[in-house]
Amino acid sequence: MSPATTVEPCDFVVFGGTGDLAVRKLLPALYLRDRDGQLPAETRVIGASRAGLDTDGYRDKVRGELARFVSGDQLDSDTCERFLNRLEYVTVDVADSADWAGLQDCLVDREGAIRVFYLACAPGLFGPICENLALNGLADAQSRVVLEKPIGHDLASARAVNDAVGAVFEESQIFRIDHYLGKESVQNLLVTRFANTFLEPLWNSSSIDHVQINVAESLGVGSRGGYYESAGALRDMLQNHLLQMLCLVAMEPPTYVDRETVRDEKLKVLQALKPMSPQDVERCTVAGQYGPGLADGKAVPGYQDDVENPDSTTETFIAVKAEIQNWRWAGVPFYLRTGKRMDRRCSEIVVQFKPVPHPMFPGSEGHSEPNRLVIQLQPHEGMRLHMTAKEPGPGGIRLKPVSLDLNYIETFKRPSPDAYERLLMDVVRGNPTLFMRRDEVEAAWEWVEQILVGWQKSERAPRRYPAGTNGPTDATTLIERDGRAWHEGVTA
Amino acid sequence: MSPATTVEPCDFVVFGGTGDLAVRKLLPALYLRDRDGQLPAETRVIGASRAGLDTDGYRDKVRGELARFVSGDQLDSDTCERFLNRLEYVTVDVADSADWAGLQDCLVDREGAIRVFYLACAPGLFGPICENLALNGLADAQSRVVLEKPIGHDLASARAVNDAVGAVFEESQIFRIDHYLGKESVQNLLVTRFANTFLEPLWNSSSIDHVQINVAESLGVGSRGGYYESAGALRDMLQNHLLQMLCLVAMEPPTYVDRETVRDEKLKVLQALKPMSPQDVERCTVAGQYGPGLADGKAVPGYQDDVENPDSTTETFIAVKAEIQNWRWAGVPFYLRTGKRMDRRCSEIVVQFKPVPHPMFPGSEGHSEPNRLVIQLQPHEGMRLHMTAKEPGPGGIRLKPVSLDLNYIETFKRPSPDAYERLLMDVVRGNPTLFMRRDEVEAAWEWVEQILVGWQKSERAPRRYPAGTNGPTDATTLIERDGRAWHEGVTA
Repeated sequence: MSPATTVEPCDFVVFGGTGDLAVRKLLPALYLRDRDGQLPAETRVIGASRAGLDTDGYRDKVRGELARFVSGDQLDSDTCERFLNRLEYVTVDVADSADWAGLQDCLVDREGAIRVFYLACAPGLFGPICENLALNGLADAQSRVVLEKPIGHDLASARAVNDAVGAVFEESQIFRIDHYLGKESVQNLLVTRFANTFLEPLWNSSSIDHVQINVAESLGVGSRGGYYESAGALRDMLQNHLLQMLCLVAMEPPTYVDRETVRDEKLKVLQALKPMSPQDVERCTVAGQYGPGLADGKAVPGYQDDVENPDSTTETFIAVKAEIQNWRWAGVPFYLRTGKRMDRRCSEIVVQFKPVPHPMFPGSEGHSEPNRLVIQLQPHEGMRLHMTAKEPGPGGIRLKPVSLDLNYIETFKRPSPDAYERLLMDVVRGNPTLFMRRDEVEAAWEWVEQILVGWQKSERAPRRYPAGTNGPTDATTLIERDGRAWHEGVTA
Repeated sequence: MSPATTVEPCDFVVFGGTGDLAVRKLLPALYLRDRDGQLPAETRVIGASRAGLDTDGYRDKVRGELARFVSGDQLDSDTCERFLNRLEYVTVDVADSADWAGLQDCLVDREGAIRVFYLACAPGLFGPICENLALNGLADAQSRVVLEKPIGHDLASARAVNDAVGAVFEESQIFRIDHYLGKESVQNLLVTRFANTFLEPLWNSSSIDHVQINVAESLGVGSRGGYYESAGALRDMLQNHLLQMLCLVAMEPPTYVDRETVRDEKLKVLQALKPMSPQDVERCTVAGQYGPGLADGKAVPGYQDDVENPDSTTETFIAVKAEIQNWRWAGVPFYLRTGKRMDRRCSEIVVQFKPVPHPMFPGSEGHSEPNRLVIQLQPHEGMRLHMTAKEPGPGGIRLKPVSLDLNYIETFKRPSPDAYERLLMDVVRGNPTLFMRRDEVEAAWEWVEQILVGWQKSERAPRRYPAGTNGPTDATTLIERDGRAWHEGVTA
């Protein structure tokens, strides 16, 4: 690997600094970047929360969390101590505008350092935090703010959040994170499409039959029931992760990859999504909710038990047939599917090419599977081109499915870095390419809201599916009536 | 592997049955087919030559030769004895029409069996053998005759051979063998092109920059000097093997792969080769002859010493820039190169795609190599797609060349069968798809003869190159003046 380039010194302030996201993802990612030599000596990480710790207590807590969330071979005590010494802790009740002196003291006299405010907290606090940052003179032109999903729960609320944050920060300072965009295989999709010439002539309705974006989780809702009850799979996964991946698959070649042009092209895709009338919603979407079933061979309760709400109609599964109304993609369905408590953990983008127009090998009718390019995101990152080859041996030409593989770990002899590692460094650098721009988020909500409206009108409850299966049968019907089938990827 | 289908019973007559080709290639191939259960009990193999052996002597000789030319793990005594029991030997001086009684006796009363006459002897004998087969009533409508290269040394002599053979056998009975067409990777080229959909949209002048067909041998002329002095690399390799591969790369999709249509399409390619005026020959061809140098680190003599002719101007190397004048390929050069005593043994077809039209990744100018599809024939059979991927790691998007591989041995867990194994069974089956039709051979000569004429006019001796190098510098110039470079494949 090429050596990582050191980023500029910064104060990395994590609101929700003792929370789940911070300890599981953000602090381990920063630790690993420190270990790789990417953080200059002056860089600090400031945990802000209502937990009422002091810096020593915070460092002790984080020491313990790193041991849990960083793999043993990446944990060395030298880096660990160096990283812990970067940590500060300030108590702040972000909703209370009188409670910001601690953070102010901490950041004062560090005028040169870039400030990153990472809002790893409830979205309802985004507005108040930004307002208080402004009131206390903590947000300057060099600052950046990072927003975690969900940004709103519909178009109007997303606009309200964006307005509140936008009242303090310029759009160029606002980093709406979608960690799927930080995955190596998702970025490699850009490179595969645009640093090679063999895909672009194929990448359209003449050669491609359909696209699938599958994000199957084997876990249930876990401890996130409170949030999830008000969200559901459509808001939690499809509005952001799945639509973002759809954009990267479908977008036109941007002029450059490091400028606004990528986001311009993604926006164009979202704007070209075929509108969903209530009738379309009825025909082209399936909502599901897991019932009791199995996970890892053990009996698990259903969603309603998990959230202790026997009347819950929140969907934990959604399948959608989307269409992009532009020159390149007209007539090519994009099947999106995501769910919890599915039979495997597997995220992948499947680009299925058209079948051969004419079987010219004797006895080959039906023996040559259509070509498929599979970009695998989970459980392993990789890329695989499914093709047909000749089976060796004398006698007639016998066709056999084979695959050309790019396995990241094998090819590059190291595991891919976590998506957050990359994205956090991009924030410090001020590179917004892999973050969602306001207009993208709102365009996605605009389309998703049509599905929400359709569901409201139909008043139909989500179809039940047993935990540990691949979703409700209606989702199978959704794709099979088009003569196609869901690609069930590898089992984790 | 699917089980091999048993072929019909036959009498396989090898003229030149004690010669080099028979013992090194044909008999081992038939032994391996026997081992695989593909030969019925009635099938016999009849060696015919002037060696004056008897059947027992022939079996003893072949027993010894199999031990030399079949790998130990494929040699088992049961199959060996079964195979040796199929062998008969007849003495025949093929030029003497009075000397055919032995063969007649051997074949009589086996009217039901298919007769294959394999002419593994000097091409000057093709005509007399066929004539005597007819005179002695040995050629019937079920018989097939197999011709080894060279078929003539120019267009007129090729026509004379084809006329003589054609006076006895129908074209459908004549199998002109080119063992390159029996290679798994060459046949897989057909499957890759036509049982998949991802290549055809790319397979033209819009996407392909140029094609290279490289057949580099590390050996010198060896004991074949007598023949080689009258042939040279152009006649010995390019007229048949390289042009046949060019046809398979360039041909239009045939209607079916098991009928005349493949040969129709190959013929169209040969007929579309841009004619070579003497000026074109001067500009687009380079002949070379190896001088003293190194092979495997040891000093070896030059060609003139090898053939004991200090004045020899026979070329042991040829590089040609060819063009195909049709809609698909206009403007796409096909660089062909073959030579003896090169720095490696490596045969491959390289399809190089055009470079990306616009470098959109920051700092990527010049970092993304054009895509290349490499079909490797020797030393190992395989296919490799060279592409650009993202190097994993945080920080900017760094491009890195990677490859998607299809390695035959790894994929199919067994070595590919020898080309002859397949082709001999195709002869018994009467499947001519992978053999050269008369019109193909003659069309190839017609084009090759233009080069011979150009060389005669220019009276220029072949450029000398030291043994163990990649040919004369003029060959490098030939491709470099077009802004391209020879693909130097893996070392054997």
